[in-house]
Amino acid sequence: MWTTLVYFLLVVSCAVSKTEYENVLDERNDFIQRELDMMLGNDITLSDNELKANEIIMDLKCKELDFGFQSPHIFNLSKHFFEYKDAVKESALYKIIQKMPKGAILHAHDTGLLSPDYVLNITYMENLYVCFEEDTMQLLFSDNIPKESCGTKWQLMHDARYSSVDVEEFDAELRKYFTIVIDDPHEIYTDINVVWSRFQQYFITTGSMFSYKPVWEQYFYDTLKAVREDNIMYMEIRSVLPPLYDLNGKVYDSVETAESYKITVDRFVKDYPDFYGAKLIYAPLRMVDASTVKQYIKTAKKIKKKMPDFLAGFDLVGQEDLGVPTKEFLLELVHAKDDLDYFFHAGETNWNGMSSDENMYDAIALGTKRIGHAFALTKHPYLMEEVKRRGIALEVNVLSNTVLKLVGDMRNHPLASFLARDLPVVLSSDDPGVWEADPLSHDFFVTFLGVASRHADLKLLKKLALNSLYYSTVKDKDKVVHEFEIRWTKFIDSLVKDKW
Amino acid sequence: MWTTLVYFLLVVSCAVSKTEYENVLDERNDFIQRELDMMLGNDITLSDNELKANEIIMDLKCKELDFGFQSPHIFNLSKHFFEYKDAVKESALYKIIQKMPKGAILHAHDTGLLSPDYVLNITYMENLYVCFEEDTMQLLFSDNIPKESCGTKWQLMHDARYSSVDVEEFDAELRKYFTIVIDDPHEIYTDINVVWSRFQQYFITTGSMFSYKPVWEQYFYDTLKAVREDNIMYMEIRSVLPPLYDLNGKVYDSVETAESYKITVDRFVKDYPDFYGAKLIYAPLRMVDASTVKQYIKTAKKIKKKMPDFLAGFDLVGQEDLGVPTKEFLLELVHAKDDLDYFFHAGETNWNGMSSDENMYDAIALGTKRIGHAFALTKHPYLMEEVKRRGIALEVNVLSNTVLKLVGDMRNHPLASFLARDLPVVLSSDDPGVWEADPLSHDFFVTFLGVASRHADLKLLKKLALNSLYYSTVKDKDKVVHEFEIRWTKFIDSLVKDKW
Ligand SMILES: [Zn+2]
Ligand SMILES: [Zn+2]
Repeated sequence: MWTTLVYFLLVVSCAVSKTEYENVLDERNDFIQRELDMMLGNDITLSDNELKANEIIMDLKCKELDFGFQSPHIFNLSKHFFEYKDAVKESALYKIIQKMPKGAILHAHDTGLLSPDYVLNITYMENLYVCFEEDTMQLLFSDNIPKESCGTKWQLMHDARYSSVDVEEFDAELRKYFTIVIDDPHEIYTDINVVWSRFQQYFITTGSMFSYKPVWEQYFYDTLKAVREDNIMYMEIRSVLPPLYDLNGKVYDSVETAESYKITVDRFVKDYPDFYGAKLIYAPLRMVDASTVKQYIKTAKKIKKKMPDFLAGFDLVGQEDLGVPTKEFLLELVHAKDDLDYFFHAGETNWNGMSSDENMYDAIALGTKRIGHAFALTKHPYLMEEVKRRGIALEVNVLSNTVLKLVGDMRNHPLASFLARDLPVVLSSDDPGVWEADPLSHDFFVTFLGVASRHADLKLLKKLALNSLYYSTVKDKDKVVHEFEIRWTKFIDSLVKDKW
Repeated sequence: MWTTLVYFLLVVSCAVSKTEYENVLDERNDFIQRELDMMLGNDITLSDNELKANEIIMDLKCKELDFGFQSPHIFNLSKHFFEYKDAVKESALYKIIQKMPKGAILHAHDTGLLSPDYVLNITYMENLYVCFEEDTMQLLFSDNIPKESCGTKWQLMHDARYSSVDVEEFDAELRKYFTIVIDDPHEIYTDINVVWSRFQQYFITTGSMFSYKPVWEQYFYDTLKAVREDNIMYMEIRSVLPPLYDLNGKVYDSVETAESYKITVDRFVKDYPDFYGAKLIYAPLRMVDASTVKQYIKTAKKIKKKMPDFLAGFDLVGQEDLGVPTKEFLLELVHAKDDLDYFFHAGETNWNGMSSDENMYDAIALGTKRIGHAFALTKHPYLMEEVKRRGIALEVNVLSNTVLKLVGDMRNHPLASFLARDLPVVLSSDDPGVWEADPLSHDFFVTFLGVASRHADLKLLKKLALNSLYYSTVKDKDKVVHEFEIRWTKFIDSLVKDKW
């Protein structure tokens, strides 16, 4: 009887202790499961084939992560983007993501999408004049020596190039104007203003070359081509709509520039009927006064009247910290809010409680359909919930944010919080050509490997692609999504059959 | 009649339009107010005198911020801490924060609190031997030439110093072992492992010097002194409790080391009765196996039995990414959880979904009273709510996180999100001596100016100080808080009277 009692006591004590351990273990696992269920993409159910594809993808992802966890000093994504942008393209995971249908690209600007090599190529066109000045240059298409002021002298690019000592060297020097990629970003780009100034210099230098009407249209045509080749099916382009010119001396106003865009899209879709077109977000510079914004709005309304299906909406651009706060234009923007859809840049800053940060309040109060960046949103718990309630998509551009010095280590990007909370995120790329990234693949790759949780899988990738269509203003959305699903299935099939 | 109608229409149209503008403006301001109300410190009501003090403080803060917003390249807090740590001490805002009663310091380690100059001074003590080896050195107190192995030769520090060509130069070289501050952190500390290795080297090199019992006690006594001089009234010290030794060859075990701490605290409180003492969190190294953790727990229980009022609880330390995940010790820790209070380090990482990140799940499931760092918490929306529900304080050490390379720009520190959501935050400093910071003032200053919202004011500062007492395990908490209030009022009065 004693032994029975002792045995009984032992069992009870073990059982109690085991239960306590199990309780803690259960709670721990419950926490994990709850958070997995909260993540962006949690509502996607993968098919059998998708599950197989997911295994392939997750195997590649986890290998890279586990390696990086052990050796952070050689983990690509903890370095500067300029250091790893080319190397990652060779990875199997990148190639899969490149092949993957990515839906739409919704946040990209003007002439910021193509590579410096492409831009260099444009300088081989006839009638391009150049004026080299100290550290800068002017470019202009003309059938005569330009009358625009030049500190040195205007010469044909052709003449400058072939009278140079070394054409290759000449082109290499020229190419530097068409990229912000440099060897030593940590030393040169010491703060946000330095890199922004170099970034804006790109647009200033190339502006008068790109606004030559034939080049403008060709650049956009080739942008759509690059976008399509990156397995994107639809685009919304933000543009300042600069006045265009031709060799006859005709200058085209913003409405005509918009038309020029539209004509190009139509031509492109005719050539590539598998592409679902593009829309325009008129996004002029924000460093202006209220009366200029009033003019902007007039222009936007004119465009809308002329091309109601082409104009998606309105935005303001430029470095937010240095720009005029949105609240300065609140009256003008309120008046137009029933006529125009807004897609404001807001919170592209790491300041907390300053005007650039508070632009998010105005954007949401003004009924913005999406927010460009919203980098500062994690510091605004109420707005985070509001964005979710109202279904305001966040157009996140992770590479832009790191290249333009908002965040150093990708793993600290606020997108990680957005994804964990299932906020309505769409990935985009801002100006990928300027930092020599692919239209969307690099941003998807870095998000998947360097920002999202280790547990985030194919569901996240699919959801991000679907979101980009869902939160777009594409015509016949259902049809486009249906077509996306067909392409997605094909992609999955070929991945599983190891055909990538 | 016509004119009346026209007038009426005009008024109506203006009124409607004004209302719409007002609606947007109201909503915008409502967003701002809601978020102000959500912030940490929102529940504090300032007295008239506090309101006056707040004006002084906010004037200084806003001036610095507005300057930085315009000139980010010369804004101190966007630079590396090593660059601005001394400069900021001259600012009026820093001096106020230094004077301010800050409550308790709850997350600080062993011999990581005093400056390299203090440590250098210890090397002037008698009986200290040194063995210089390639890039490293060993230090040991002994009344004879040490028998411990040495790649070169053991010599008295006194002899080495005064036989050197230049004593000043000798000391300057020696001092480098006692700090991780260097001129070019961006170039040398290229990733987290490099800086952690240097950081740990400090503890390895100084370990056998500090564990000489008289030095150990003196170091802790002087730590308490420095803490008190930084206007802190109570401390919880984490320690690995190394074996101590004396010149008689006696070696003291961890329990005796704990006693040595307690004796020192008692002596200090006798000398400075305005200080409210210190407690111990036994925090041995985490890079061990489960059976070692079992031993740790035994030791902790012994200490608790011997000094129930002195031991606050248990923790594990070391670089989390490279350490063993908490879940490996889950069984051992569950068994002891009713006997020991836990104060786990967790989520001191920028990896997402890796073991170091998931340590937070275990810490919370194990009923931790506070979490050390929780740097990764913003990526865990469910845990964020759970921490708030359960009142688990987050011990945030912003400078540690930037110096040890988790985050570059202070403005991206997740603490900004914690403050915005009123999570139970306490500020601490981890190992401030190793990066030459004051015990708490630098961390408070940087948080207030570089992390918190521009709108965060004296309410935040007061709440952070109060939290450090509220979430402590100090004896007679009400009495201590009452004493804090008295000191706080004095501080406010002298600030308003411009006596600081
Ligand atoms: Zn943009
Ligand atoms: Zn610590």
